Amino acid sequence: MATIKEVAMTAGVSVATVSRVLNQNGYVHEDTRRKVEDAIRQLNYTPNEVARSLYKRKSKLIGLLLPDITNPYFPQLARGVEDQMQENDYRLIFGNSDESRQKEMDYIQTFIQNNVVGVISSTNDPDADIYAGLNIPVVFLDRTSNDRPSVYADGREGGRIAAREMVRRGSKQITVLQGPAHVRPAIDRFEGAVEILQELNIPYEVLLTTSFSLTEAEDWAKELFYKYPDTDGIIASNDMVASAVLQEAHRLGKRVPEDVQIIGFDDIPLSKLLAPSLSTIHQPAYEMGREAADLLIQLIEGHHVERNSIQYSVKFIERQTTRKVDHDG
Amino acid sequence: MATIKEVAMTAGVSVATVSRVLNQNGYVHEDTRRKVEDAIRQLNYTPNEVARSLYKRKSKLIGLLLPDITNPYFPQLARGVEDQMQENDYRLIFGNSDESRQKEMDYIQTFIQNNVVGVISSTNDPDADIYAGLNIPVVFLDRTSNDRPSVYADGREGGRIAAREMVRRGSKQITVLQGPAHVRPAIDRFEGAVEILQELNIPYEVLLTTSFSLTEAEDWAKELFYKYPDTDGIIASNDMVASAVLQEAHRLGKRVPEDVQIIGFDDIPLSKLLAPSLSTIHQPAYEMGREAADLLIQLIEGHHVERNSIQYSVKFIERQTTRKVDHDG
Repeated sequence: MATIKEVAMTAGVSVATVSRVLNQNGYVHEDTRRKVEDAIRQLNYTPNEVARSLYKRKSKLIGLLLPDITNPYFPQLARGVEDQMQENDYRLIFGNSDESRQKEMDYIQTFIQNNVVGVISSTNDPDADIYAGLNIPVVFLDRTSNDRPSVYADGREGGRIAAREMVRRGSKQITVLQGPAHVRPAIDRFEGAVEILQELNIPYEVLLTTSFSLTEAEDWAKELFYKYPDTDGIIASNDMVASAVLQEAHRLGKRVPEDVQIIGFDDIPLSKLLAPSLSTIHQPAYEMGREAADLLIQLIEGHHVERNSIQYSVKFIERQTTRKVDHDG
Repeated sequence: MATIKEVAMTAGVSVATVSRVLNQNGYVHEDTRRKVEDAIRQLNYTPNEVARSLYKRKSKLIGLLLPDITNPYFPQLARGVEDQMQENDYRLIFGNSDESRQKEMDYIQTFIQNNVVGVISSTNDPDADIYAGLNIPVVFLDRTSNDRPSVYADGREGGRIAAREMVRRGSKQITVLQGPAHVRPAIDRFEGAVEILQELNIPYEVLLTTSFSLTEAEDWAKELFYKYPDTDGIIASNDMVASAVLQEAHRLGKRVPEDVQIIGFDDIPLSKLLAPSLSTIHQPAYEMGREAADLLIQLIEGHHVERNSIQYSVKFIERQTTRKVDHDG
């Protein structure tokens, strides 16, 4: 099989020129182009895909930092980012921060060392020095920043909606599972729920949880019903925790939603497969990932950006862990 | 605040020398080191973490190609790979192939362009030219290769186990959901199940599915009970599909496991949260990810590798979608 070198020799040009012709980039004189094309035909040359790609321009790299890809909310976000980047010929260096400041710093540093042209980060601290010091565009995803580009859902409103739905569907002794205290979206949801419960003067208890991990969620679910056996409405910090609560309710022989209502947060794909299926607050994770990637690409390419802080609204998804009410109820 | 340049000027050395002292790499004469340290103290210099990192050696990049991170089996694999790589100071460029040959080729090419030092790929075609042509180490993950490094679970045995458990728990009209025909682990599972059903002379039906997508799984679940209303045992191609089948069984008022038994595959984290919880074939995804990363690092670093094809065994996880039997039954 002919090589690109043989094509170059036959055409009497350099390998780089043959590459320019093959990849249709850079200037090549018409006569030269014809010579190369003749040589390709004459030698019946088929460019080896791998070798050929080496002459193409490198894909640009983006750093993507998410808390934990095994939390079922994040694969949707990641997939949205990846699809948008892939279609625009950017590639992702990916890391899990575990919401740890140190891991986050390490990742951002190695992103820079590897010449990323932009960063998407789900950080709890957009104002950290590490971001202020970067001279490449950064978009915060699933996290708010006052004055920097960010794409996020309205967690506080989500918390408010969950509390309102819980109350109008008849729960009187509500327990709010407060998510990790250093995770911004968890704080927002919690504050939104509590705001409404106080406003409506509904008694509530709070159980503090320290992670979104499923293993730990099972322990919290046990603790919840042990401490507050009479609770009749549970606002969970996310769908994973809600699932664990639902299972513990089953184990204790409580009927859902008759004895106790449960509302999750996220609307992960499996929430509708639970039995009863989980009522939850939907955030459009995939679309948010796409939007963040699109915004970052606009910033990298120096386009004018109309809105650099994009808040997605959330909505209540009524399924079977909440009781039915008249819609004008 | 003092800069590294001022330190260099004060010490009468180059910036590179200051950097070597700060990062404790490369040779620096003892006298020079002392001069630099004096200048650092004198100017009260604190190295800026970001700037400082620029002098450090780049983290090496690895390409990781998985079919689809939104399939809940893959985040576990990815997390295992990432943890092992992160601890060893490698970074991941990540892509979803969607089991598409073209996307896979594109990703492998861009991995190479971005100078990855190794690749981990869940491909259906380890013998493809694109892999043969690479002169960096490649480990196939979740996929078998006869003569190349790979880490995978024994899918065929998994299929056999599922069929045996289904039969000894009393199902007489079994339906096997055959996963996508071009996805190697799906073929293995299917063939293993059919092998045992034929051996035991048990009648069975086959329903072909073409992806692992949850949306489509719901359609197949409907088709399944429409075509084979009397089926009393379903071997699903993975837990996502099994979950959709379970939900459809609920919708039709079938009792699980009394009327119909269901066995999934993968043991994704949420399978135990379903109601009834899902009996399934467990594969140790996180450990497999770690192992593949470890194997790749050994190969990259030129260490002697004892076993370069590592098969994990799978096991039956008895939960509530299968009927109880005596253990000596």
